[in-house]
Amino acid sequence: MLPPGSTVGILGGGQLGRMLALAAARLGFDVHIYADEADTPASRVAARTTVAAWDDEAALKAFAADVGVVTFEFENVPARTAQILGQAGAPVRPNASTLATAQDRIDEKMFLASVGVPTTPFAPIAAEADIAPALAQIGAPAILKTRRMGYDGKGQTRIAGSDEIAAAWATIGGAPAILEKVAPFAHEISVIAARGIDGDFAAYDICHNVHEHGILHVTRIPSITVPATERAAVSMTHAVADALDYVGVLCIEFFVLPDGALLANEMAPRVHNSGHWTEAACLTSQFEQHIRAIAGWRLGPTTRLADVEMTNLLGAEVEAWENFAADPDVRLHLYGKRDVRDGRKMGHVTKLMRR
Amino acid sequence: MLPPGSTVGILGGGQLGRMLALAAARLGFDVHIYADEADTPASRVAARTTVAAWDDEAALKAFAADVGVVTFEFENVPARTAQILGQAGAPVRPNASTLATAQDRIDEKMFLASVGVPTTPFAPIAAEADIAPALAQIGAPAILKTRRMGYDGKGQTRIAGSDEIAAAWATIGGAPAILEKVAPFAHEISVIAARGIDGDFAAYDICHNVHEHGILHVTRIPSITVPATERAAVSMTHAVADALDYVGVLCIEFFVLPDGALLANEMAPRVHNSGHWTEAACLTSQFEQHIRAIAGWRLGPTTRLADVEMTNLLGAEVEAWENFAADPDVRLHLYGKRDVRDGRKMGHVTKLMRR
Repeated sequence: MLPPGSTVGILGGGQLGRMLALAAARLGFDVHIYADEADTPASRVAARTTVAAWDDEAALKAFAADVGVVTFEFENVPARTAQILGQAGAPVRPNASTLATAQDRIDEKMFLASVGVPTTPFAPIAAEADIAPALAQIGAPAILKTRRMGYDGKGQTRIAGSDEIAAAWATIGGAPAILEKVAPFAHEISVIAARGIDGDFAAYDICHNVHEHGILHVTRIPSITVPATERAAVSMTHAVADALDYVGVLCIEFFVLPDGALLANEMAPRVHNSGHWTEAACLTSQFEQHIRAIAGWRLGPTTRLADVEMTNLLGAEVEAWENFAADPDVRLHLYGKRDVRDGRKMGHVTKLMRR
Repeated sequence: MLPPGSTVGILGGGQLGRMLALAAARLGFDVHIYADEADTPASRVAARTTVAAWDDEAALKAFAADVGVVTFEFENVPARTAQILGQAGAPVRPNASTLATAQDRIDEKMFLASVGVPTTPFAPIAAEADIAPALAQIGAPAILKTRRMGYDGKGQTRIAGSDEIAAAWATIGGAPAILEKVAPFAHEISVIAARGIDGDFAAYDICHNVHEHGILHVTRIPSITVPATERAAVSMTHAVADALDYVGVLCIEFFVLPDGALLANEMAPRVHNSGHWTEAACLTSQFEQHIRAIAGWRLGPTTRLADVEMTNLLGAEVEAWENFAADPDVRLHLYGKRDVRDGRKMGHVTKLMRR
């Protein structure tokens, strides 16, 4: 167990790193942020920051020597970065093989299938010529996504029919891709859960998510999903966490079909936007839970004290902060980002409803 | 209203500054700590830190130029420091006259009396020769306290009879003092409340406090006090806040006598140890409330979601952190202090009980 007073290393300086850093501080840890740009939201609440490239071996080694454990706020950390840190003696949690799996949409789907978690039908796309036969096989409409580096609806586009193939291929820049059948879902949910070093597992209540333009807009708890489906989603997440020998907070997004069947959509090996409400409404937030897990501590209770609705503040929506701050029914959380950009996650509000 | 992205200046680097800084970050503020020593708990979660003496005019002016508002985590900030900051254009909240009143036990008691808040009988002590007549007048047992700079039972000693006068005078170092009659109280409570720039006022539920060796040990909510007494305590606190044109979180500790009468014991013009439970159990913590108030924002709701018991971890008690971390009924908060010293406040645990 990493004792209080130790230093937690976090790769990435965005809002997830910031919220992890705030939670680590509450447990008595120092935080060292490693980011490839200066003045990030996370570095402004951390004891130390290293600003260096992801492949800067000297900087990574110095960082590894300063911290007791390393975690990350985004899954696109280069595998080589994690490898250098591990070789320099800093345990990386979740582990490097999890990172590799989550970085490639096809590897991820094949892994999920291997542990009995169903996904939407898909086909690998290496060249434009692969798309037409794949579309014929899985059926339209489908979504073409880059295999790697996508998030928040970036690097993906919809294909309604074969006449849209060329445009779609151009849209994603002709990168190695995956074609996924559009799931005829009734709604979307996510499981936010944690697994400890000793294999302990704890899930939060299921999140009901509503996306807009590929970006999470609202998360509501309790979800509208029936208990049996919720239990199945948690059980699949548990199987995934065990199979990866996972340590930390893990999120799996699922489509719920009209008949209640589940299809895993995406896995995030980190704290997740759909779990932000836990900070306002749970005894242990997802951020504290993640820090507890990677530090080798016992997981905290995931008990929820209120019904909640979390809404993202995207881009210029944050300019209404004064209204949110004055609303007695919501808790406002802002990320300290310097520039407002279209669709950028600037903060969130959590509405709490007494049960 | 100070908008998110602005910088909040905090004088002092201890655990109260740290918890204020964490709350300010959640509202999107940067924090600049000013402290007279390096590597403090607060500076490790702040964007910037100035390490300089309280009378370093150049450092204070540079600090004032960098921040949108200044507040403090302890009331013994020199009056001259606040004056320099104010003259350099940084509003100091709460205001300088509040600071002056709270720094002197006699000024404080006279002020409280002036707004109709009763205190225990007292007498000013300028020299050892003043003690015997004062003791005869107010009656033994009494407590001799330095007028200035006391906290957590420091700078004070009990006098049971006139034969203890010389020793008591020596114990407090012969400093200007106050002799206070020991109140025959049934129990002790505190009011944690906030007043906004617009005069808005909001109190948290009354805290029932148990001290050991002059240091707060446990705070429980709800208190065991009858509603009429609680209302009177809040009403007195409201009168005090209005009279001071107070901005921020204010704490008044009261003795509750067996007949339910109240005597104000001490006033703290800042967030207070007996309000730490608000972070675990309220929609708005006392730390966020203070930041909201000094930033000119509307006060947040003080709604409490659970019954609570907050226990301080003093000195070596923190070494049992592993047990507290593993207890599903408590939330652990550690302050990141480097050295364990006898009686030093190292952290606290808040036990939450569903109502």
